[in-house]
Amino acid sequence: MEKRIKILVSNDDGIESLGIHVLVKYLKELGDVLVVAPLTEQSAVGHAITMKVPLRVTEYKTNGSFYGYAVEGTPADCVKMGIKNILKEKPDIVVSGINHGSNTAINIVYSGTVSAAREAAIMDVPSIAVSIASHNPQHFDFAGKVSREITKLVLANGLPTGTLLNVNIPDLPEEEIMGILPTMQGKTKWDDVYEERIDPFGKKYFWLTGKLIENDNNLSQDHFAVKNNYVALTPIHFDLTDYRAYENMKQWDLSTVSDKTIVKAEK
Amino acid sequence: MEKRIKILVSNDDGIESLGIHVLVKYLKELGDVLVVAPLTEQSAVGHAITMKVPLRVTEYKTNGSFYGYAVEGTPADCVKMGIKNILKEKPDIVVSGINHGSNTAINIVYSGTVSAAREAAIMDVPSIAVSIASHNPQHFDFAGKVSREITKLVLANGLPTGTLLNVNIPDLPEEEIMGILPTMQGKTKWDDVYEERIDPFGKKYFWLTGKLIENDNNLSQDHFAVKNNYVALTPIHFDLTDYRAYENMKQWDLSTVSDKTIVKAEK
Repeated sequence: MEKRIKILVSNDDGIESLGIHVLVKYLKELGDVLVVAPLTEQSAVGHAITMKVPLRVTEYKTNGSFYGYAVEGTPADCVKMGIKNILKEKPDIVVSGINHGSNTAINIVYSGTVSAAREAAIMDVPSIAVSIASHNPQHFDFAGKVSREITKLVLANGLPTGTLLNVNIPDLPEEEIMGILPTMQGKTKWDDVYEERIDPFGKKYFWLTGKLIENDNNLSQDHFAVKNNYVALTPIHFDLTDYRAYENMKQWDLSTVSDKTIVKAEK
Repeated sequence: MEKRIKILVSNDDGIESLGIHVLVKYLKELGDVLVVAPLTEQSAVGHAITMKVPLRVTEYKTNGSFYGYAVEGTPADCVKMGIKNILKEKPDIVVSGINHGSNTAINIVYSGTVSAAREAAIMDVPSIAVSIASHNPQHFDFAGKVSREITKLVLANGLPTGTLLNVNIPDLPEEEIMGILPTMQGKTKWDDVYEERIDPFGKKYFWLTGKLIENDNNLSQDHFAVKNNYVALTPIHFDLTDYRAYENMKQWDLSTVSDKTIVKAEK
């Protein structure tokens, strides 16, 4: 008997978001799908995990029937909990999304969607983060189809241990898509502005706003590719070492830090 | 007149933690120190930023005199707010810590201490994250001295744009320290276990626990170096692209995703 593919699905927009429903619909064509997602929206939580308060998990129903598990925590919590306590074994793949809004360039650092997939990569499970480049998406069907096909490709081609695939899809009908490209994380980032306001009690508060500084100009960069109507596929990992800086630091004179204790770094 | 060095200090243990007080004491020997830190402990928040609720910032006093600014937010919020709204210019350096507990290997991904320094690196400001390898540190004076001297070294040698220095210090007196080493992020990680309990109302809840899987065996790896009583200096960045996987992906047949829209990736 053929073994069915096991797929764990999570996101950061919460278990009620349209994006996760589209993802589940398309991934069910490939195998068994288990949803473990945050009960409430968790955007911009980065790779937060819940440690100071206990986690709560509840069975979640839609239209009276079981839909998945809702976790009162972060996307990374959902993946840990889904693999360790619900499935109790590794799924074949974890797919996170579909996020409403792109996760390219610097946004990868802040993204809860990506952190769910990264948590899977840390646990040696192949994973994909999927985002559609609009906060009010109109073309979810193409994004769902891409999610399904990329999932098949990752299952077929594999990814290096510790690497996940970050997929960003323009919010366009298929016929307007220019192509599908392997990409690198772009250099576009935010220039932050805090908007100051006064509450009814005379106290200041601040909203984080800002404008995007476009530093990308090549289709090999995720942000630029999506802006130019390409689907961008960026493999990312959690080895954060800057190896060039590491080599350069071997030349630093560390004897000033503590003269009694200096050892020579290997050359 | 000589321009004084401007240092922005933050952390994730909160503005009342002993670690930040030690850091401020030692860094004041180098220049002007501004503290902008979370009002409450923010461990394991990763690179979260506050966007869905407004930020509050208050002047914080200790013993009746101004000590710094307390932000009702995350470490990354503190650095953004400190640079954009309080200093209104870039400081010479941002130093985050001293964290109670090491931030090596996989813990770098979850660390609020590191995310404060990473936020500075994103804003093109040199930065350092400092942690002492104990949750109940006894030897803060050596850690304070190391923080001061590494700050001088980073100001003198510079770091590549977008790279921060992650410093981990054993909780030992100086004479027991074996040396100071440039290191890489280690491969040690957690095997998570959720401890299940029942609340007084009969409902389940879970605490995240786990045991460390030691995958490091070389002094060039941060976790192993600290465990063997060395100070570990790991340069890290936020370019998350897995370049080898990116090159390999150019061989993938992407025509299955959407046959109408395939373009050939550059070879």
